[in-house]
Amino acid sequence: MKACGVVVEYNPFHNGHHLHVTQSRKVTDCDVIIAVMSGNFLQRGEPALCPKQERAEMALRSGVDIVFELPYHFAVQHASIFAEGAVKLLDGAGCDSICFGSENGKIEPFTHQLKLETEHQEDLQHTIREQTKLGKSYPAAAAESYRLLFSHSSDLDLSKPNNMLGYQYITAVDRFSNMIPYTIQRTASDYHDESLHKSFISSATSIRKKIFEDGLQEIVHHVPESSYAVMEDFTKDGQFLNWNHFWPYLQHMLTTSSPLALRAYYEVEEGIEYRLIDAAMTSTCFESFMQQVKTKRYTWTRIQRMLTHLITKTTKEDIQQNTHPTYLRMLGMTAKGREYLNKYKKDFPLPIISNLNQQHKDLCAIDIRASKAYAMGFSDSAKRKEMLAKDFTAPPVIIQ
Amino acid sequence: MKACGVVVEYNPFHNGHHLHVTQSRKVTDCDVIIAVMSGNFLQRGEPALCPKQERAEMALRSGVDIVFELPYHFAVQHASIFAEGAVKLLDGAGCDSICFGSENGKIEPFTHQLKLETEHQEDLQHTIREQTKLGKSYPAAAAESYRLLFSHSSDLDLSKPNNMLGYQYITAVDRFSNMIPYTIQRTASDYHDESLHKSFISSATSIRKKIFEDGLQEIVHHVPESSYAVMEDFTKDGQFLNWNHFWPYLQHMLTTSSPLALRAYYEVEEGIEYRLIDAAMTSTCFESFMQQVKTKRYTWTRIQRMLTHLITKTTKEDIQQNTHPTYLRMLGMTAKGREYLNKYKKDFPLPIISNLNQQHKDLCAIDIRASKAYAMGFSDSAKRKEMLAKDFTAPPVIIQ
Repeated sequence: MKACGVVVEYNPFHNGHHLHVTQSRKVTDCDVIIAVMSGNFLQRGEPALCPKQERAEMALRSGVDIVFELPYHFAVQHASIFAEGAVKLLDGAGCDSICFGSENGKIEPFTHQLKLETEHQEDLQHTIREQTKLGKSYPAAAAESYRLLFSHSSDLDLSKPNNMLGYQYITAVDRFSNMIPYTIQRTASDYHDESLHKSFISSATSIRKKIFEDGLQEIVHHVPESSYAVMEDFTKDGQFLNWNHFWPYLQHMLTTSSPLALRAYYEVEEGIEYRLIDAAMTSTCFESFMQQVKTKRYTWTRIQRMLTHLITKTTKEDIQQNTHPTYLRMLGMTAKGREYLNKYKKDFPLPIISNLNQQHKDLCAIDIRASKAYAMGFSDSAKRKEMLAKDFTAPPVIIQ
Repeated sequence: MKACGVVVEYNPFHNGHHLHVTQSRKVTDCDVIIAVMSGNFLQRGEPALCPKQERAEMALRSGVDIVFELPYHFAVQHASIFAEGAVKLLDGAGCDSICFGSENGKIEPFTHQLKLETEHQEDLQHTIREQTKLGKSYPAAAAESYRLLFSHSSDLDLSKPNNMLGYQYITAVDRFSNMIPYTIQRTASDYHDESLHKSFISSATSIRKKIFEDGLQEIVHHVPESSYAVMEDFTKDGQFLNWNHFWPYLQHMLTTSSPLALRAYYEVEEGIEYRLIDAAMTSTCFESFMQQVKTKRYTWTRIQRMLTHLITKTTKEDIQQNTHPTYLRMLGMTAKGREYLNKYKKDFPLPIISNLNQQHKDLCAIDIRASKAYAMGFSDSAKRKEMLAKDFTAPPVIIQ
């Protein structure tokens, strides 16, 4: 059986994702699609709209065969670590190929760029350092350096976030895996486009915005029917979450902790702890807090990731001790996915965890704590109690 | 000018307190009444109904001349440390006398008991140890030991909380001060009585209960008019607080912290951190959490104090480094109070802090942090912002 890997967040699963899954199956001619998906907190340092279990179910009802959770310490990271963790997991799960979305759907510009970069590694590092010295954030410095060095000889526009992320996958595959890389063209509007698209393929960002502003029913045409049903069911006793639901916890933590205590947490560096405390003292909402904290040097997402580490209590030590994937946490599978796993899992280099139990407490400590922090976002205390235990009580989602 | 000291919490100020102030002035024949009052968190490990500034104003409008804040590290403590801190502050503020409420209003049983205890110190310590070994909490073991050793020769019923607290004052005065102790009879119903008393002198406990259950207007006859006005004004943009408002913060902290991290906080001892975490995972409200945590060994108030230290992030180190009063934080005064201070403050052994500023940041660090934690109880974010800064922005309450 052939397996194709996809790296996803599904926040939430929408028509564009459905197209990506369908096309990935087609272009790679695979038997199963394996998704590595962020858990309850996402790459951009945000709480997921709804829990990982619901997001896995949406995926499994729309063409994905197995969903593994990308552990927190890879998921809430800048793109290169995110990509490295995801690629290693897909490789560990026996994927023959990986397929990601990009602006023009051709793989050659990525492989060509990789070749160029390998040949000019030193130049690139030097230029990024120079650009950083000008006060740019790392992502901005990197993008500018790629433009300066390679734009005349490369067809890959790395100023597009999707291309940059795809390029990280290509780089990680080159270093850590023998998977064959494929890319398909993104037909959705730009990732950050906030207005719903007329073609019913809209960005997850615009879908979330619409849900919070106008309610779930407004996005009914923009997600598969089965995804809509999962979300509708979730709202019976749950609520969609965003940073606003975690703002009081963040504010409590920042206003009662010493700068020294805050420095223990991952990514809290260079004195930003003082800015965080000052802003927490005078802000009345998450948005105004962020406006006060952000600087030219720190991207919005970098700050959000830092704040996610605060509310999940993820320390520098936690991350230093967890630089390699050590397990495959399975969130769910289809009958076909089960067939694949039964056939191949004995050859996997990592153990598969289907039902979390007390034995896994240390191994999965960071993910478990992140789920608990996520649970605190729910205003209903019975829902909080359910969600606090969910990592241990929820069996994998099985779709026949 | 003669000053009489009183040790109070005024949560809220009520008719019984008014009577206590009036009678204290009368029996001691003093010119000013100086109150040492708990700040935003109280001796029994609870958030105050309303902020210390409002509670100081209620006192100043009803006969008290000066209100000093009992620092957090004395206020949220068992009775003997609470009494020691309060007595030292009153002594430091030049009080000639101290006057407290007791069950029968006579001072002799207290002084007689003190004499007995001094003579039988070793017996007492031995008996308390034996009683503790039987599994009793410290307060229960102490009460039983006093009963066993002294009930035949003493008229002081130390099973009554008010007598026990008064006895702590007497003991502290004996050790740390030359103030003359007075006591007046409590005419209010028992401290823990939860039903409002017909005579309009009701316990603060019953008044708080009534406020939360039926609204402020229901207690209008049980507090002085001026106290009612202060509280009514406060509710225009504030809300009365109790533990329920801090439960989400406590739950977040307990579910995302390691047992080791929790052990850093004051009074978290003997493995109770595991009980706290387990109970936080499965409780849906503060009351059910407490029911799950409490054991024979730990009194309700001891657990509440421990939880207060958690939400205020008060560590063992914080308390070890602050065993003596080092300042007199003035929350407010009347014209008479000002006259007294102007005359005598140069002789006080401790500096008076009227307006907190950045210079006092380290000196008052624990109190400031406690105020910030208290601020987080308000659900309105603009009120939170106001309260987060209030220690620095609110001038002392001045009543002409």
